[in-house]
Amino acid sequence: MSGFNNNWYTEIFAASGSAFGLQVTKKLDEVQSPFQKIEMYETTHFGNLMVIDDVIMLSSRDNFLYHEMLSHPVLFTHAKPKNVVIIGGGDCGTLREVLKHPNIEQVTQIDIDEQVTRMAEKYFPELCQSNNDPRATLAFADGIKFMREAAPESIDVIIVDSTDPIGPGEGLFNCAFYDSCRKALRQGGILVQQSESPLIHMPLLKAMRDAMQDAGFAALQTLLFPQMVYPSGWWTCTLARKDGEFTGFREADAAAASFNTHYYNVDIHKAASAWPNFMKVALQK
Amino acid sequence: MSGFNNNWYTEIFAASGSAFGLQVTKKLDEVQSPFQKIEMYETTHFGNLMVIDDVIMLSSRDNFLYHEMLSHPVLFTHAKPKNVVIIGGGDCGTLREVLKHPNIEQVTQIDIDEQVTRMAEKYFPELCQSNNDPRATLAFADGIKFMREAAPESIDVIIVDSTDPIGPGEGLFNCAFYDSCRKALRQGGILVQQSESPLIHMPLLKAMRDAMQDAGFAALQTLLFPQMVYPSGWWTCTLARKDGEFTGFREADAAAASFNTHYYNVDIHKAASAWPNFMKVALQK
Repeated sequence: MSGFNNNWYTEIFAASGSAFGLQVTKKLDEVQSPFQKIEMYETTHFGNLMVIDDVIMLSSRDNFLYHEMLSHPVLFTHAKPKNVVIIGGGDCGTLREVLKHPNIEQVTQIDIDEQVTRMAEKYFPELCQSNNDPRATLAFADGIKFMREAAPESIDVIIVDSTDPIGPGEGLFNCAFYDSCRKALRQGGILVQQSESPLIHMPLLKAMRDAMQDAGFAALQTLLFPQMVYPSGWWTCTLARKDGEFTGFREADAAAASFNTHYYNVDIHKAASAWPNFMKVALQK
Repeated sequence: MSGFNNNWYTEIFAASGSAFGLQVTKKLDEVQSPFQKIEMYETTHFGNLMVIDDVIMLSSRDNFLYHEMLSHPVLFTHAKPKNVVIIGGGDCGTLREVLKHPNIEQVTQIDIDEQVTRMAEKYFPELCQSNNDPRATLAFADGIKFMREAAPESIDVIIVDSTDPIGPGEGLFNCAFYDSCRKALRQGGILVQQSESPLIHMPLLKAMRDAMQDAGFAALQTLLFPQMVYPSGWWTCTLARKDGEFTGFREADAAAASFNTHYYNVDIHKAASAWPNFMKVALQK
């Protein structure tokens, strides 16, 4: 059973018959929000751990992989990103990475659950260090409704940093949501979304890509990266361009970036788009 | 505790306070060889599972990642490999990958423990399908002694496909062993060895690279790849050139390869050498 037992927090991934656990010093907190149960643990080796509805979300030690890969590739691919909307992302780690880009003028983060951000402020203060940046707006609202009502052609980059496609995150993985996003993007705009494990969630990844194409996105790019605390330790995000092709990695800008990253760099950006043979076979039309 | 419990085989990684488990249908076999305890399980989603001295070695479903990355990058980097020595590798998965290369004339596999190969023949027959290839020799002997006594400048590629640096594998991670390997390699020869997790074994990786350089290897290249059943799900192998630099990836030959792989291809080969920033910092001299 998933849960906290004998000083271990263990999550069982039923769909793949596998499990991942972290050794825990103590339980720090638990809150039942109107949307979900949020638990916080202190681990022996991975800093603090956030668990939502019995699913591991992030640890202090390895969240940099996910947050950097959800932010920097898309921002160095868009020709001139100025405003960004983050759907989900309540832990504020993605927001912090986006705000490292000096050319970004405005970031709006829409997480349905304010309690996620309150917990992050307390247990992941390093991820919340840019929350008071004058360019940032933190809203606690329904991201699906927000995108449906967004002004057409008003956003450069949409980052969907959500839970898995069950529970509150479910409506963020379908054609209707992607259609809203596409309409809200300006010309040259890009949507990026976490898209699960290439090793054990291929049907879901394929369904996401199909839905993005059905919604009219012109080109897709799925990037791969390691993420220890997620099922299989191997994860993806998928970029969807409103129009045009993926030809525009601003490599010189990425190489000259004035901020620090722990994972991301020019070589990592290029490497992330290399697909294993089994993935090419599974995703070919 | 690591082990088999309630239909799960769980391995605890004490050094990182983390754990990985696979759901098990039944225990298939156990043998205590003169060297180690070998257990076999049938899992629900990952085929068969081999465990040696309570450490997960491989599963049917995900071993292709490791075996391909230990074989094809080095064989498409060496200018003209003809003979290969595999130290360890008793499951024969690396041997199978090496023998896919038609230009390879001779492969000698030296595993200290014959029982590993006997178990692989029974429970991973697909990995052993090339064991009767006339180019292959399977020897069950001490790989350290074998390399110490090998004729100077007699081998093109040495693949060290060993257990972790504890138990029988310990002597395969030090300067004396690397010195034997370097002397046994021909000009242009390359050693490759699995080199643990970049996320949680950095001191070990650094020590290995230092020992390889101390033994006189001229250039090193550490490649990264996912490996779900190993600690952190993220793994490396390190190539060490006897002389010269790593400039020679035979990309055209790799692109034209006549055999199938599930993970490896030209893009994956190039991508594997992209280092995250934290790794550049940790391994800089």
